[in-house]
Amino acid sequence: MRKEEFNVIGHEVPKYDSLSKVTGTVKYPTDIYLPGMLHGKILRSTLPHALIRNVDIRRAARLPGVKAILTGRDVPQVGFGAERDFNPQWGDQRILQATKVRYIGDEIAAVAAVDEETALEALALIKVEYEELAAVFDPELAMLENAPEIHEGVKNNISIHFPLVFGDQELWKQADYIVEGRFSTQLVNSTTMGPRCSVAQYDHAGNLTFWRDTQFPFGLRMELAAVLGMDAKKINLIRTAIGGGFGSKISLQPFDGVCALLAKATGRPVRIAYTREEEFSCGHPRHPFIFYVKTGVKKDGTLVGREARVIVDNGAYNALGPLVPLIAMHPFVALYNVPYLKYEASTVYTNKTFGSAMRGFGNPQGTFAVEQSMDMAAKELGMDPLEFRLKNVNKPNTTSINGLKITSCGLEECLTRSAEKANWSEIRGKQGDKKRGIGLASLIHVGGGARVFGFPGVGFSDGTGTVVKVDDFGKVVVFCGATDIGEGSDTVIAQIVAETLGVDYETVFLHKPDTNSTPFDLGCHASRTTFTAGNSALLAALDAKNQVLELAAKLMNASPSELDIKKGNVFVKSEPSRSMDLVEVVQKGHFNFTNDGDGQMVIGKAVYEPPNEITDPQTIMGNMAAAYAFGTHMAEVEVDIETGQVKVLNFVAAHDTGRTLNPLGVQGQTYGGVAQGIGYALNEETIFKNGKVANAQFHDYKILTALDMPPIQVIEVESIDPLGPYGAKGVGEPGLVPTAAAIANAIYDAVGVRMTDLPITPEKILKALDELKLLGSSV
Amino acid sequence: MRKEEFNVIGHEVPKYDSLSKVTGTVKYPTDIYLPGMLHGKILRSTLPHALIRNVDIRRAARLPGVKAILTGRDVPQVGFGAERDFNPQWGDQRILQATKVRYIGDEIAAVAAVDEETALEALALIKVEYEELAAVFDPELAMLENAPEIHEGVKNNISIHFPLVFGDQELWKQADYIVEGRFSTQLVNSTTMGPRCSVAQYDHAGNLTFWRDTQFPFGLRMELAAVLGMDAKKINLIRTAIGGGFGSKISLQPFDGVCALLAKATGRPVRIAYTREEEFSCGHPRHPFIFYVKTGVKKDGTLVGREARVIVDNGAYNALGPLVPLIAMHPFVALYNVPYLKYEASTVYTNKTFGSAMRGFGNPQGTFAVEQSMDMAAKELGMDPLEFRLKNVNKPNTTSINGLKITSCGLEECLTRSAEKANWSEIRGKQGDKKRGIGLASLIHVGGGARVFGFPGVGFSDGTGTVVKVDDFGKVVVFCGATDIGEGSDTVIAQIVAETLGVDYETVFLHKPDTNSTPFDLGCHASRTTFTAGNSALLAALDAKNQVLELAAKLMNASPSELDIKKGNVFVKSEPSRSMDLVEVVQKGHFNFTNDGDGQMVIGKAVYEPPNEITDPQTIMGNMAAAYAFGTHMAEVEVDIETGQVKVLNFVAAHDTGRTLNPLGVQGQTYGGVAQGIGYALNEETIFKNGKVANAQFHDYKILTALDMPPIQVIEVESIDPLGPYGAKGVGEPGLVPTAAAIANAIYDAVGVRMTDLPITPEKILKALDELKLLGSSV
Repeated sequence: MRKEEFNVIGHEVPKYDSLSKVTGTVKYPTDIYLPGMLHGKILRSTLPHALIRNVDIRRAARLPGVKAILTGRDVPQVGFGAERDFNPQWGDQRILQATKVRYIGDEIAAVAAVDEETALEALALIKVEYEELAAVFDPELAMLENAPEIHEGVKNNISIHFPLVFGDQELWKQADYIVEGRFSTQLVNSTTMGPRCSVAQYDHAGNLTFWRDTQFPFGLRMELAAVLGMDAKKINLIRTAIGGGFGSKISLQPFDGVCALLAKATGRPVRIAYTREEEFSCGHPRHPFIFYVKTGVKKDGTLVGREARVIVDNGAYNALGPLVPLIAMHPFVALYNVPYLKYEASTVYTNKTFGSAMRGFGNPQGTFAVEQSMDMAAKELGMDPLEFRLKNVNKPNTTSINGLKITSCGLEECLTRSAEKANWSEIRGKQGDKKRGIGLASLIHVGGGARVFGFPGVGFSDGTGTVVKVDDFGKVVVFCGATDIGEGSDTVIAQIVAETLGVDYETVFLHKPDTNSTPFDLGCHASRTTFTAGNSALLAALDAKNQVLELAAKLMNASPSELDIKKGNVFVKSEPSRSMDLVEVVQKGHFNFTNDGDGQMVIGKAVYEPPNEITDPQTIMGNMAAAYAFGTHMAEVEVDIETGQVKVLNFVAAHDTGRTLNPLGVQGQTYGGVAQGIGYALNEETIFKNGKVANAQFHDYKILTALDMPPIQVIEVESIDPLGPYGAKGVGEPGLVPTAAAIANAIYDAVGVRMTDLPITPEKILKALDELKLLGSSV
Repeated sequence: MRKEEFNVIGHEVPKYDSLSKVTGTVKYPTDIYLPGMLHGKILRSTLPHALIRNVDIRRAARLPGVKAILTGRDVPQVGFGAERDFNPQWGDQRILQATKVRYIGDEIAAVAAVDEETALEALALIKVEYEELAAVFDPELAMLENAPEIHEGVKNNISIHFPLVFGDQELWKQADYIVEGRFSTQLVNSTTMGPRCSVAQYDHAGNLTFWRDTQFPFGLRMELAAVLGMDAKKINLIRTAIGGGFGSKISLQPFDGVCALLAKATGRPVRIAYTREEEFSCGHPRHPFIFYVKTGVKKDGTLVGREARVIVDNGAYNALGPLVPLIAMHPFVALYNVPYLKYEASTVYTNKTFGSAMRGFGNPQGTFAVEQSMDMAAKELGMDPLEFRLKNVNKPNTTSINGLKITSCGLEECLTRSAEKANWSEIRGKQGDKKRGIGLASLIHVGGGARVFGFPGVGFSDGTGTVVKVDDFGKVVVFCGATDIGEGSDTVIAQIVAETLGVDYETVFLHKPDTNSTPFDLGCHASRTTFTAGNSALLAALDAKNQVLELAAKLMNASPSELDIKKGNVFVKSEPSRSMDLVEVVQKGHFNFTNDGDGQMVIGKAVYEPPNEITDPQTIMGNMAAAYAFGTHMAEVEVDIETGQVKVLNFVAAHDTGRTLNPLGVQGQTYGGVAQGIGYALNEETIFKNGKVANAQFHDYKILTALDMPPIQVIEVESIDPLGPYGAKGVGEPGLVPTAAAIANAIYDAVGVRMTDLPITPEKILKALDELKLLGSSV
């Protein structure tokens, strides 16, 4: 179908939940007050590495208002963490530590009290006797022979090591040039505006109702059941509104299990809300990476391959760390046509707060290394970086050497259209007096599911179920397990249902999700919701539509195939004036006047599992996603060589959306992504002093505000994916993936310094400029 | 299937919600506190009949804490009431009266304030100027030519007149004896322990969320939309827990519309909770009836027919009054084999509180008249009343002259088994010194739906939709629109799903119902839930089961038809040791290890419409129900001729359950029904003084307590209905239908007085005994 034939798809639709958000009526978990509710607080380690000799709770237990205290000895010591069931070693976390702490923030004890103040007072009365151990904070030092052992038996603190080779290693010999670089990225926080919070309540039959701002209700329910040792049947996970997630709210965290156990111990509902300090110190940030990258090219500009050694700073626990280097690999292997890759990655424990998922999941790190390497190779070749990329650009219907089946691919169009919009050829290489430059970077990211979630001993799912109910008044209620964390997926799901069923967007209502009432979904991650939940919603709506057409056919003396629905009007396609209101059809189908007992209600349902695959669970190899998203960012910057300050003057972001379902949504996602990407490039960093986060509030941890934003021009490249709902692919994460690399490349264009360590602070710029002068170049 | 083959059906199962009720965790509407919630109160007429000249709200409006005041001039004057859409005249009610009041309690104005006390204070400051009109309280006086006109243009205050004739009038001439009687019944209150309450909240998009202890969420939503003049799509009706209903919570009441309009006017949530006085004064009680009955019999004891003139005391408004004489007719026409009936019924306005639905809906009144007439005829014939009934008893697979198709019928067995259990033949006719006697009465009632609910301009439905979701842990969640008002239908639905799907009762969870998330249901009335919702749940569970068997067939190398499920175990029927855990089947079906993108989730669904019919909406003629319930009560009483006190010594209640799904449920329903029935017979009555309820609290309105109860023996007659779920029929209402008649007949057996006016108070007994002496009989 052509764009103009759609009634809802492609239209600028206000966000489904915007009214409730701007009027303040939406309920975040911290808005929950249950009768008799207690407040929980967690006592955290003040040392980065120590044995716990004793925890004395006696004084705290005597404090009036304290209702329960738990220590590591009181809770099940069940290991949890990423894909624990496929590799038991990965499950290295406990909800409360009984014998050892491994970072400043590790959970030691918990208190439930009548209010937060009392709980905090009780924490101060708990006396922990530690035996301090030597700590290590740098992953390269942690890999040395004599480094402190953070987890028993984990040699050289390497939690996981992937030695991967793809393609033909012989090709490496054909390289005319090999460019090398070391790239490093920092630890950044997801800085969600809403701090995470859980509320737990048991009923008298032992059923647990659990409220959480979770991105993955069905996963959290499963993880909760495991750490609590209870039957998952007895848990209902209610997903509250979410004040931002960005990946940090995907997994179970210790406080979730603690919250449930405090509720169980006291027989009262318990709430635990993170403080901003906890968000910064124990909030599942982005993993820092170190990349040693070699890129081989032929003289004609053909890429022959790459060799990379990658070190992931895991922090104290695995969480999703084992998987993150595997996604960081995607730009190395699949962004351009790369016939050979050697990729050796180690995820290394350190005594710091530990990373998990954050928007892009390794990809911003990997792209920072790859896309600077590309510019370095282009320089070596004497080619324009754009031209070099276009020569190696991925095309539709190709398969990468690691098995990613690229179907739709708008990368070439992203490159050419953004170059045009950004005036690439006019600006590039002409710094002028003002030290201006332009840089670009591209991205590939999963955009059609990510089959990475396994079920213990059974297999994988990447599916979503949806039920669509059309009632007697034409109200369309959608039960979809998908989770909108602010990115607008609810809007897209409502649009897809409205378009497919042929009704107005305003008649579609999404049922508030809990695991009892919605069908399963894999959660909000990997930019999968538009694609998988969208397809599921489309199929369920189609099922409902077919039921309506069956009813209408009887009432209109036509066959269902002769009918269609648009804007709530059921009509004969060949004779549109023969029509009935959908509401009338539904009512007559249900309130059957002939009283023959065959009244019908319209309830459509569907399960969508994308045709992606995982061939090896531990390395998540295989065609992980059923579609891939592409994009190109171009940044124009000005560098103040006196202060080292970088100013982004103009920004162009071209994204391959498959098809744009809601332009406002794509624009919003891109603006937000670019803001995070610029922060990642220039100013965001969690700073540690002896393992302690030194800037655990927004006063010292700077994120971009609206006033800091450059003009951003968004280009939507519609490659019309063959499997996406109405051709759409996911665009949730891509917005920040290439941003830092584009800016670094622009800085090089402006002042000739190659900034390989994030964030690119003024101090680092000045230092690099100084070194450049020492080397004799003139800026 | 034989009884012992069931795993759940027929077993004594604890009530689904018992734990939450006994522990006090269940939420009634009066437990709802929303942030910023206001409290509404209603100013009611203090005169039984008057014109409203002026309503002065100025002083009330100035009271601090008052947020809104509405009068009849501020609200839509939309008529509502029973089946309004089929007969506009029936819609005689308004949510606030603008010009006239018709009973003491009529709604004139409403206030929303910060608390109930302030709202009450404001009511006292509202000044109403009335012009008082003559009032009439007796329906027979109201029908006289010069009676006050209560509704403009309604001649003789007869709201509706049904002159109905069935069968062959010629037969009347064959009567050897015609016995005549006048019977009258009182107005009683449903005396629900939980007073009714509604809470309304609008969001900023104009969507209304409405909480109510309603028996019919989908109906209330529709009625609300009509009286508010809003699109029903924008309403979500959340059915809270219900502290008893008995019919009184079926329909919209003025305070519901007022509550919504106060919420709209203030922009804040508003709650209106009835006081106990309002419950008694404006609470949809049972209609008082007057019957003039003639019964014709042949000498051999064959019934030839009946002629009846019936007057229903409607009170001030119709509500469901127009329909109630049509159900009161059922015992006249269909309890026994009656070849002729002339039935002339008038529903008559009076200036009193108005009836609506109450358990039995006219049937206890009609049965009181019919079953005493039967005893009177038996006496005339010189036959034993039991023998006389057995001669004319209804048999299975017959059709009554008004078109009720009786399929399963256990009436004969009810009569014989209860006679045996009650020692009928030993006690009957042998009063002895203690003035003891035994009496019996039987019943017919709809027990398989009641196709009486019409949709404006479209037709009728009597259906229920159900969705059954089986998740990855074997948790079975049921979405059924049915409403449990305490009678245990949720338990029965969970049992049916468990039995059908082959899982444990404890794994089945019912989703808390609201109109958004559950499929349509016709509400809790007419003892229909077990039959219609039960069948719907059965079919949805069967759909889910078939999906499980399809998955299992692939995993077990068998065809689905070779497999079955019992207690969560999927097995090959011919070789039960070849089996898999249902949870494993569901998980493997969903988390498809082959990654071929065809993972499935188990979601079953079904719509059940019983094959009943209505051929004339206004007289609800046709085979209204797909099954009919029968029963016999036998009461043994002792009459104190000094005080007039009647003591029920022993009580036997035999009920045709079709099949007993939960013996505890049937027993509970019967105990409760008999308690209400004895109260109806002997002590309950709403007393009026000049139109004002004089006993509007439990201190003066006496209901039976546990200490007042006689021993009750329940007999379950399992006639195995051909269409009922597992053969079951509805037994919700029957428990009280014949009770009063049985007691009156027992009193006659004990002391020889025919008590034709309810309640049978000691004063009336003494008066009757006095009259008997005057007539020369000796007691």
